[in-house]
Amino acid sequence: MDRAERPLRIGVMGPGECRPDTAALAERVGRRIAEAGAVLVTGGRGGVMEAASRGAARAGGIVVGILPGDEEHTANPFVTIPVVTGMGEARNAINVLTAHAVIAIEGGPGTLSEIALAAKTGTPLVGLRTWRAATDSARIDMHRADGADEAVARALALADPENRAC
Amino acid sequence: MDRAERPLRIGVMGPGECRPDTAALAERVGRRIAEAGAVLVTGGRGGVMEAASRGAARAGGIVVGILPGDEEHTANPFVTIPVVTGMGEARNAINVLTAHAVIAIEGGPGTLSEIALAAKTGTPLVGLRTWRAATDSARIDMHRADGADEAVARALALADPENRAC
Amino acid sequence: MDRAERPLRIGVMGPGECRPDTAALAERVGRRIAEAGAVLVTGGRGGVMEAASRGAARAGGIVVGILPGDEEHTANPFVTIPVVTGMGEARNAINVLTAHAVIAIEGGPGTLSEIALAAKTGTPLVGLRTWRAATDSARIDMHRADGADEAVARALALADPENRAC
Amino acid sequence: MDRAERPLRIGVMGPGECRPDTAALAERVGRRIAEAGAVLVTGGRGGVMEAASRGAARAGGIVVGILPGDEEHTANPFVTIPVVTGMGEARNAINVLTAHAVIAIEGGPGTLSEIALAAKTGTPLVGLRTWRAATDSARIDMHRADGADEAVARALALADPENRAC
Repeated sequence: MDRAERPLRIGVMGPGECRPDTAALAERVGRRIAEAGAVLVTGGRGGVMEAASRGAARAGGIVVGILPGDEEHTANPFVTIPVVTGMGEARNAINVLTAHAVIAIEGGPGTLSEIALAAKTGTPLVGLRTWRAATDSARIDMHRADGADEAVARALALADPENRAC
Repeated sequence: MDRAERPLRIGVMGPGECRPDTAALAERVGRRIAEAGAVLVTGGRGGVMEAASRGAARAGGIVVGILPGDEEHTANPFVTIPVVTGMGEARNAINVLTAHAVIAIEGGPGTLSEIALAAKTGTPLVGLRTWRAATDSARIDMHRADGADEAVARALALADPENRAC
Repeated sequence: MDRAERPLRIGVMGPGECRPDTAALAERVGRRIAEAGAVLVTGGRGGVMEAASRGAARAGGIVVGILPGDEEHTANPFVTIPVVTGMGEARNAINVLTAHAVIAIEGGPGTLSEIALAAKTGTPLVGLRTWRAATDSARIDMHRADGADEAVARALALADPENRAC
Repeated sequence: MDRAERPLRIGVMGPGECRPDTAALAERVGRRIAEAGAVLVTGGRGGVMEAASRGAARAGGIVVGILPGDEEHTANPFVTIPVVTGMGEARNAINVLTAHAVIAIEGGPGTLSEIALAAKTGTPLVGLRTWRAATDSARIDMHRADGADEAVARALALADPENRAC
């Protein structure tokens, strides 16, 4: 199997606690990722991460959860493959390096760090109701989507090596 | 899915270059892991890692490759899910935290660091032709196996939560 | 020596390339930090990091440079103590955990990730011409300063354990 | 200041708990490092790390403590500059990359991992009553010293860029 044959890996980043309507959005994102045959990559915890994992797992997908802690039991119950880092927030860099594209949903400062790290490392970004960030001369480049289906379609297109410079 | 329902994850650690007989041993280890329904966790590179990955992939298993570098193309072609850390040798700690048990095959100093980290973090260890290490008052506790089949059987037994204190 | 007797550690985060007026600002920030007897913590590279390091080193201060790469020669010439992580952008989390307060100066996405990680981990933040970030319901809390002297005075006050809840 | 002008950095690795005679040995090692004008790099915790830190601090040296946890209060009281990683055992790789040479004193599995990582990354190693490790065809190359003074003299010689290929 070479790069072109591996399943795409789509990251979903968002806060560890969220409202029911955000969870429903994240769950639909996860489901669409799995239905497309892609692997879901998340931080493995609750909230948006768990809702997306539930959506992907119930559609038969593989869910990778890159955990900040050093114990597997901190993974949400829909993670099929926990990656136990024990590195705290430093694992956010692994999340964005591992995903071919990242969908950021709402989020607190941890999600903002993942948006920034994706921009820094060149991982394509799609945003749903998430952070806007700018300086006087710069801003984070992100494809803003209106709903789960558009977000996943954009992420899959951006993740496809056929569509990427590198 | 909770911990008890997830597939077991067995790590195979070994050098990035190896002789043909060692590669044959590692490939059989990888195959047996996949045949048992477990996920193979490796460092994702060549040598022992690639041989084990080939064995597992050809038996239809999932192969997680936790890469030291920051580019996916450094994964061997049998890795199904690369985890791209960009952390160099610091990723060795993730390998042993992620696996429920580790099989060390021969190896250079990187493999020795994984043996030591497994001992430090309490991940059960099985050795095949690998390092022996001791001080005047301490030694690394490891189950030494005579061949691939025994190594995998021991690793699976040690990884099973039914057999573990924690 | 206990926590109260150690020198304070002030982080300066900013891009690896910058205009001369930004470099002058960063250099003054570094000088003020050293004049206050605090240790400067940076990412160890060029641009804002180097200018701040130059200011601190020329005032006789200690400069810690937490390098993303695995080779010391990538440190700027004013770093007195390089910390060689080999972890790439994941080291940004170490920068903010190590500093008692962080001053962010302008910056690209790497600096934004450090701002976000500081917010996530509770490290007090002071901004100079830097990122503004918000969602519909959240924003990054930061003390915005008008110049180098105010920024350092605020950072020192925020870093002082006498002024901190924890 | 360029590389040649920076103080040398000597790492001392050893267990977090130790007997009084080992502590006395480690304290003398730390003192000699400081008397030579070098910076002491340790893991920042107790036992051998604390004893070496006490020796260096009392001789007026700088002590860098690269902590596994995410809170400064876990540093021993003789650390002048804590580096707070929050990365657990993965920080062992930073210890050996940051030191120009490492002295390993006795030790448990964490120390063995640092010996192995030093060998892997090419950091010169000096051992005092520490691990011996070998496979049928390989062993860890280490300069074994008989006492604190010889260990520090050897480490300083190995750390000197004048004596190193790179």
